Amino acid sequence: MSLTVAYDPNNILSKIARGELPSIKVSENSEVFTVMDIFPQSRGHMLVVPKRSTAVNLLEEQPSTLQTLIVEVQRVARAAVKALRPDGVRIAQFNGAPAGQTIFHPHFHIIPVFEGETLARHGGGKAETAELEAIATQIRAALS
Amino acid sequence: MSLTVAYDPNNILSKIARGELPSIKVSENSEVFTVMDIFPQSRGHMLVVPKRSTAVNLLEEQPSTLQTLIVEVQRVARAAVKALRPDGVRIAQFNGAPAGQTIFHPHFHIIPVFEGETLARHGGGKAETAELEAIATQIRAALS
Repeated sequence: MSLTVAYDPNNILSKIARGELPSIKVSENSEVFTVMDIFPQSRGHMLVVPKRSTAVNLLEEQPSTLQTLIVEVQRVARAAVKALRPDGVRIAQFNGAPAGQTIFHPHFHIIPVFEGETLARHGGGKAETAELEAIATQIRAALS
Repeated sequence: MSLTVAYDPNNILSKIARGELPSIKVSENSEVFTVMDIFPQSRGHMLVVPKRSTAVNLLEEQPSTLQTLIVEVQRVARAAVKALRPDGVRIAQFNGAPAGQTIFHPHFHIIPVFEGETLARHGGGKAETAELEAIATQIRAALS
């Protein structure tokens, strides 16, 4: 497929999965983890990510991995709703740079939407770590 | 959850599932179907829909149904890439009107992205039926 590129194991999500880069984790098990997006489009923007993958996007991912991911997307999105009380939630997944993909390791975006608050640009301003930690703490509490 | 509403079995996707409204189907099995979005954001914009659901959105859907849906999303998106040769593909799923949800029955959007072509507004202009039929024919051929 023309939109795919070769998998680079040094992408940022793969490095996070290997513990080579810091992140603010919201959930983690043997197959999948959730981190706060450090360039959030809204309060509570998270990424749900497979730990081990050599696919660059959803099109190339193992179907069983997609099944694991979507169930975790639902679980974490529900926790975000409980914790943050948004008015809506967008789930987004981008394949190929022209579609908005910036990290070439599969991931789903969970983007809470608050009425009257415009979403920031994808990959826009970087958030304060302390602020993301505080939001993550709220969502983690709603997960348990 | 405050963003949910009561399920209305007379929503447009449920009516299509029951055969009470016409649609341009791309795929169909006992659990899920894919239709062309009649207000497409791009050429090849489709919706992947569970046949039987009493959930208004992803948050309330059965996890096993989400697993069935995401595998079909991948299968149909791959066919769209093969048939239409887009430069990217967006997968989107909206929960709650403020997040962009307009039909309160679970569905995933598959939105091919073509470089140099701006996406139309969600729920914008209605497409010509003949044009949608022609695109659906191409994607169906790529599925088989």
